[in-house]
Amino acid sequence: MIGRSSLLDELRQQNPLVHCITNSVVANFQANGLLALGASPIMADAIEEAAEVTAFSSSILLNTGTLNSSTVESMMAAGKSANVNGRPLVLDPVGAGATAFRKNTVVKLLAELDITLIRGNAGEIAAIAGVEWEAKGVDAGDGKANIVEAAKDVARSNRCFVAVTGETDIVTDGEQIIRITGGHPLMTRVTGMGCLLSAVSAAFLAVSPKSLEAVAHSLAFYKKAGEVAAEQASGPGDFVVHFLNALYRLDDEAIDIGQMLLEGVVK
Amino acid sequence: MIGRSSLLDELRQQNPLVHCITNSVVANFQANGLLALGASPIMADAIEEAAEVTAFSSSILLNTGTLNSSTVESMMAAGKSANVNGRPLVLDPVGAGATAFRKNTVVKLLAELDITLIRGNAGEIAAIAGVEWEAKGVDAGDGKANIVEAAKDVARSNRCFVAVTGETDIVTDGEQIIRITGGHPLMTRVTGMGCLLSAVSAAFLAVSPKSLEAVAHSLAFYKKAGEVAAEQASGPGDFVVHFLNALYRLDDEAIDIGQMLLEGVVK
Amino acid sequence: MIGRSSLLDELRQQNPLVHCITNSVVANFQANGLLALGASPIMADAIEEAAEVTAFSSSILLNTGTLNSSTVESMMAAGKSANVNGRPLVLDPVGAGATAFRKNTVVKLLAELDITLIRGNAGEIAAIAGVEWEAKGVDAGDGKANIVEAAKDVARSNRCFVAVTGETDIVTDGEQIIRITGGHPLMTRVTGMGCLLSAVSAAFLAVSPKSLEAVAHSLAFYKKAGEVAAEQASGPGDFVVHFLNALYRLDDEAIDIGQMLLEGVVK
Repeated sequence: MIGRSSLLDELRQQNPLVHCITNSVVANFQANGLLALGASPIMADAIEEAAEVTAFSSSILLNTGTLNSSTVESMMAAGKSANVNGRPLVLDPVGAGATAFRKNTVVKLLAELDITLIRGNAGEIAAIAGVEWEAKGVDAGDGKANIVEAAKDVARSNRCFVAVTGETDIVTDGEQIIRITGGHPLMTRVTGMGCLLSAVSAAFLAVSPKSLEAVAHSLAFYKKAGEVAAEQASGPGDFVVHFLNALYRLDDEAIDIGQMLLEGVVK
Repeated sequence: MIGRSSLLDELRQQNPLVHCITNSVVANFQANGLLALGASPIMADAIEEAAEVTAFSSSILLNTGTLNSSTVESMMAAGKSANVNGRPLVLDPVGAGATAFRKNTVVKLLAELDITLIRGNAGEIAAIAGVEWEAKGVDAGDGKANIVEAAKDVARSNRCFVAVTGETDIVTDGEQIIRITGGHPLMTRVTGMGCLLSAVSAAFLAVSPKSLEAVAHSLAFYKKAGEVAAEQASGPGDFVVHFLNALYRLDDEAIDIGQMLLEGVVK
Repeated sequence: MIGRSSLLDELRQQNPLVHCITNSVVANFQANGLLALGASPIMADAIEEAAEVTAFSSSILLNTGTLNSSTVESMMAAGKSANVNGRPLVLDPVGAGATAFRKNTVVKLLAELDITLIRGNAGEIAAIAGVEWEAKGVDAGDGKANIVEAAKDVARSNRCFVAVTGETDIVTDGEQIIRITGGHPLMTRVTGMGCLLSAVSAAFLAVSPKSLEAVAHSLAFYKKAGEVAAEQASGPGDFVVHFLNALYRLDDEAIDIGQMLLEGVVK
């Protein structure tokens, strides 16, 4: 059965500390999103302290959105610290297919680190899988068998979970697939919505490590928060406000994860 | 005739990708403003990828707000890529007169790059023109002939458009001058309002390159959005929220650019 | 008597320029908070210009939230410029106890600079004082005599003011102690609330240098703004919006600092 009604409660009781080595555009939004959710953020990307911060954190997120050579070094050090210390490690390969620098960095991180979850959009997962994809305006969509297969390939090759998010989200461990529907188009008009989702998934994984279900819960919760916010919003400006409130106010029951949002398990 | 009623529609249909090498204070606001408008942001300032990102973008913005030696190098590489690839290139010389580092950087960018538009406040344009100006609390104002002349001088010397924004905006190609009135004082109580405007102008130039009219449209649209937001706001906190909504909701007809906001052309 | 009814008015008339060398997560929020308050922000952390910017600023804030080796160098240069030019210098030792890098940096800044005010939470002040403290979820609290003593020790050792903020704030010059009650728990669910407070204190010190009273006023004002915002908010998302509005709208009379929020002076 998919669905564990107490996961969000547990998260809020444990208040996991999520270490984010992330891009400068979304750091504030991620920190506020984690605080609203009931987790705690710590952003520390200096090589002098990255590994040390990871060691006392509950989980860690690496985001390639505004990479530079020194953050790549910090990501590697923090990732190794996560592996040594047994912390869940989430990779958000922002723009993985956009430039050689990002592609090479993602390849290197995947080769040298034991990643728990890769969360990206269809274009990013396609780039990692090495399959053709039109990067602009991508969407995980229904019925795009190749993206599902690409996600499963990436999951198997890297022995990790892969979440491809878009109009319909999918998450897979290389064998099972869980589909999550819902959300709202306004979610595409706010910067960092995917980036914050990766941080939220890292918080859920801190509470329930190595659990595909926990990842699916985080995606379902996030889509529900988007729906609630969109009902109250008249544009992207107030959507953000309502979205942070929804992360703060929604509880396990309001979500009804097991019943409403997970569409089934195949394979 | 000034005024092309379909410009905003075209922008939203084309969804231009605007590459911003910008300051860390306003990057999130710029990204959200571009998304709300109907454009797409990409922030990438690492030397490893800056030129490559410019090459596949629709237009590019260089903002000197939180300069450091490595971003200066990336700005130069991206600017050259913009010139080679024929992309509109906007320079926002934040604090050009404030420090020697910023002044020298702006001088160097102007010397080595073919800039499409310089958008700044009166103090910044005065600093580039080398004329005396009291930098704090500057405003383009009406009747300050020397700023108009300074703007024309800068435009002619650099063969570019120059926009000086403030209570009244002016934009010039060195010969023609378009004045744009409107806006609201709350626009001065939110950080990055000028920075986002430069990004919005870059998006309009992506749709209508080398067009003084397109720049004037972007300024008029922005002032109108400020007025609409101010009507609904009780302070700078909710002003930002309503402003992003206005960028999202206003359309060509609501603006009525040709009639309402452009005051005339003088030589 | 504690309380000078015109301090906020004076601040708004003087519009002090506050130079912030700060962390990338909160820079936007700090800039917007200072603008809403009636001060002006300038964020400049490049070594090429940091000291020069400090020299023409009204006061300066050093924040260790996302330290790296180059910002440490800029902090030192700016701090020395503040001392030479007689500018109030505020240190926000974010995460001082969290890593060796932060601890060492804070020790070095305190050793080489003449700091006006250290503003931190109990864990950070305890780390500087070298006393035991459970860092996570810290609070200045009532009745925790050791934190009061730690704050006084730090103030005396460094010949500066120390503010420890939490459920109850205290501020001391090593002899006098002022306690400030109020505020709201939602203030802990928004990133950078402490960081912005340090910037607000820097703005008050620009108007009334070397004044313990001015620091107490800034803390009392900030707690009051938090209360006003919380009354209107349904979560952390709209709390931020109302909080910025409150910084903008509250005036000296609304605060009634002398009577309502300062609890007394003890030795």
